[in-house]
Amino acid sequence: MLMPRYSIGLDFGTESVRALVVDIADGRIAGRGVDKYAHGVIDRELLGSKVALPADYALQHPMDWVESVGHVCKSAMRQAKAEAKNVVGIGVDFTSCTMLPTLRDGTPLCLVDEFRAVPLSWAKLWKHHGAKEETDRINQIARERNEPWLARYGGVIGLEWFFPKVLETLNHAPNVYDKAEVWLEAGDWLVWQLVSGPFPRCSVDALVRSTCQAGYKAMWNRQSGYPSREYFAAVHPRLADVVATKMPGKLMAPGERAGSLSEAAAELLELKAGIPVSAAIIDAHAGVPGAGVASPSTMVMVMGTSSCHMMNSRIEQLVPGIAGVVEDGILPGYFGYETGQASVGDAFAWVAKTVGLSHGELNERAAKLPPGSGGVMALDWLNGCRTPLMDGRLSGAFVGMTLNTRPEQLYRAMMEGTAFGLKWIVETLREAGVPCRRFCASGGLPAKSPLLMQIYADVLDARIRIPESQEPVALGAAILGCIAAGTEVTGYHSISQAIHAMARWREDLVYRPDLRARKESCMAV
Amino acid sequence: MLMPRYSIGLDFGTESVRALVVDIADGRIAGRGVDKYAHGVIDRELLGSKVALPADYALQHPMDWVESVGHVCKSAMRQAKAEAKNVVGIGVDFTSCTMLPTLRDGTPLCLVDEFRAVPLSWAKLWKHHGAKEETDRINQIARERNEPWLARYGGVIGLEWFFPKVLETLNHAPNVYDKAEVWLEAGDWLVWQLVSGPFPRCSVDALVRSTCQAGYKAMWNRQSGYPSREYFAAVHPRLADVVATKMPGKLMAPGERAGSLSEAAAELLELKAGIPVSAAIIDAHAGVPGAGVASPSTMVMVMGTSSCHMMNSRIEQLVPGIAGVVEDGILPGYFGYETGQASVGDAFAWVAKTVGLSHGELNERAAKLPPGSGGVMALDWLNGCRTPLMDGRLSGAFVGMTLNTRPEQLYRAMMEGTAFGLKWIVETLREAGVPCRRFCASGGLPAKSPLLMQIYADVLDARIRIPESQEPVALGAAILGCIAAGTEVTGYHSISQAIHAMARWREDLVYRPDLRARKESCMAV
Repeated sequence: MLMPRYSIGLDFGTESVRALVVDIADGRIAGRGVDKYAHGVIDRELLGSKVALPADYALQHPMDWVESVGHVCKSAMRQAKAEAKNVVGIGVDFTSCTMLPTLRDGTPLCLVDEFRAVPLSWAKLWKHHGAKEETDRINQIARERNEPWLARYGGVIGLEWFFPKVLETLNHAPNVYDKAEVWLEAGDWLVWQLVSGPFPRCSVDALVRSTCQAGYKAMWNRQSGYPSREYFAAVHPRLADVVATKMPGKLMAPGERAGSLSEAAAELLELKAGIPVSAAIIDAHAGVPGAGVASPSTMVMVMGTSSCHMMNSRIEQLVPGIAGVVEDGILPGYFGYETGQASVGDAFAWVAKTVGLSHGELNERAAKLPPGSGGVMALDWLNGCRTPLMDGRLSGAFVGMTLNTRPEQLYRAMMEGTAFGLKWIVETLREAGVPCRRFCASGGLPAKSPLLMQIYADVLDARIRIPESQEPVALGAAILGCIAAGTEVTGYHSISQAIHAMARWREDLVYRPDLRARKESCMAV
Repeated sequence: MLMPRYSIGLDFGTESVRALVVDIADGRIAGRGVDKYAHGVIDRELLGSKVALPADYALQHPMDWVESVGHVCKSAMRQAKAEAKNVVGIGVDFTSCTMLPTLRDGTPLCLVDEFRAVPLSWAKLWKHHGAKEETDRINQIARERNEPWLARYGGVIGLEWFFPKVLETLNHAPNVYDKAEVWLEAGDWLVWQLVSGPFPRCSVDALVRSTCQAGYKAMWNRQSGYPSREYFAAVHPRLADVVATKMPGKLMAPGERAGSLSEAAAELLELKAGIPVSAAIIDAHAGVPGAGVASPSTMVMVMGTSSCHMMNSRIEQLVPGIAGVVEDGILPGYFGYETGQASVGDAFAWVAKTVGLSHGELNERAAKLPPGSGGVMALDWLNGCRTPLMDGRLSGAFVGMTLNTRPEQLYRAMMEGTAFGLKWIVETLREAGVPCRRFCASGGLPAKSPLLMQIYADVLDARIRIPESQEPVALGAAILGCIAAGTEVTGYHSISQAIHAMARWREDLVYRPDLRARKESCMAV
């Protein structure tokens, strides 16, 4: 019997990092490790300080990532009873846009004595919301100059993205901006530590940036690169050369080999030096390969409090209101589309709270109702509309109530509302010429509400598949690590072959459109 | 000291009759009597029968009215310690359209042996809903023939009105229709019993019909009378001569003297024969004089589960969607307008039930909110829209919700929704050239929710007054009895003088528009 060979997926979340040791032959999870970051989300006061941080700050400690990744990697390997020599690749996913300023040797600026007490020198977590004014300015100048890249983001740059956070630092902590030699995503920093570090030994020549993070969060495009010097100068004169002087690195797609595990990093993880490491990927996007989706035109819906939908396509179209279309954004060789619905689970929770009933009770009652919720229709914009309108000021609605309308009809209507919200997104993509043929639902909601999945299947008039893995994101990172190892090592001749071998859809659970339900629904109207 | 002189108001409701003995000098209620009808609403089975009535049937027993009115009149007089010789007039209000077929001597057909077992020979209560198909036909033929009177009812004849109930009888119990010598409103029948009966001694020459009931429920108009023979023939050949052959009687306005108390009726009530009796009025409409409203352009809002608004005007205009405009419909000499909102208290109750909180709790929380309900707006059409759209198929809505929207914001928004519904009605009247200057709120809701009244004052930008009387309907009937007695007896030189002497608005409670609230509301938008 051949010894199994493994890929390691490192999944950096908001509160903790998770490592999976995965058999590359079939995707079996051989070992698992999870570790909470020592300092978690830093949003009250800076370490060793009593000064309260502003309410919209959310920072992280880079050493937490390094220390925790050592723990989880070792414990996952132990659980797998795997030998280090059988690990063929490493993949890394990370929250985004979580970013930080460093020196050219990889040292985070916040760990330089001079800056320890300066909040904006620390790593800013994705949900750090300090850059409101900066975001407005970045959007305003882009609109005024009619920047061509704006359309790739549905016309709006987000508060949580990369350059708003850079500009916030330039405005509010200019010496941090001055001293920063490298501005980069945390995922890219982590990969840099693995292939060239850990700091302070990193070489800037070994720095690789992910096309995923750069494309979705930093307005980068394979054809035209980052926004122009002229644009940045118009935003702020001192930002003009930010790309040329402070953003070194080579861009690579997730699944491409960013480098090999360095001796020092191998020591930290108790692995062998030289193992291929994939370019990083945003955590949500790792869920695409992790859900067993290799082919274009299959939408992966990550459904939780909000929903994020990702899809690869061979076709590039500037679709209205998408959160982003990025070449090599999810998998190499494809245009990756990201769209979203701003409140899904949150909308159901709002209804449940408003009517004072539990999700369990409401699901049970709503499941007994025919489609159409007795004529009640809901608009799910309780947190604004992301795709396709990209307007956070919009709000939700219920119409069609009578004196006989019951709470479960409102609840079901809200479910139907989110389903029609998704149908609108799918039709917007299709009308723009981007095919969208298959659907796969992951995240927390599908397991919680089979009714919701059935409604989606009915409304989309399509089968909805469920990934086999409960951890599609970390699994996706491991798959990318395997792909980075290359055909000669893994025997997989294509990305698609690797994905299909390592991740699958459930065979025992497929939501199919119920023709009778569709008929009843038409009759009810 | 002069002995006080009294007028008696007889108020026939759905379940009981109420008598007030009222001092005509100042409207003081000297005595009161209430009695439940022995058989109440007959909606399960006919007396002495085991055959179930159809679900939409609601009948009454005419003898209940006669027996109960004797009891209440006597007990009110006893309580007042009033002498019969000091009673100067009697007024009668009645639910409408409650109607019945009789012989020419006043005998209800249902009391003739041959018909006792025939449900449709009995008095049909206002909420008897058996005439659905007949209502459709009556409306359809009116529209096809472009009948000019249809516009006086907002373009729609109601299911509960007079001719639908007659036609239902013709269709489903033709022998009842054949044998009926007189079809009339219960209020007119009761007045006939007082001035010429009780049956079987009534003379058809003494029969007086109220312009209120005839105008609002039987398509009668002072200028053109009832619909034409040709119209009725088109509805049903055998209905052609219904007015000429089965609807004798002289039309008089409420407050006009229909006749004098007969000897036999005086015995029944233990009063003196010869007392003037006013023509009948619909119960809701009696609330206009009972609320102290004598002048035109003052809207009396009767606010309960639904709202009914009545107003006298010197001007006749066919306003879209009004429930009726009737000359002499409420008080002699004016055009009486009736408009309505189909769910008001019912809409608040629906919200309370849906969110699982009490009205008390919701009122308390909603009162602390600024106007505008945090951006939530409600459409109160949970039971359709009466005025001005006259469409029972319409339904309600909430718009503007976010994840932070609280139940009390939905509740307050519904209050604001009904206020704007009323504002729309007022503007519809004004735009049609019918002035609407003052507002008076009666019914159950104003006392229950001062917040609601304040919202109405703010939205209407007008003071809202509250009638002093808790029983404005029965008081209104008494005032009409006083008016019918005439100037020589009462000393009142005008209807207006009598109303203002006997009914007033509260001085201690006036809802005034809160200019700051209006400003906040504008700022919130």
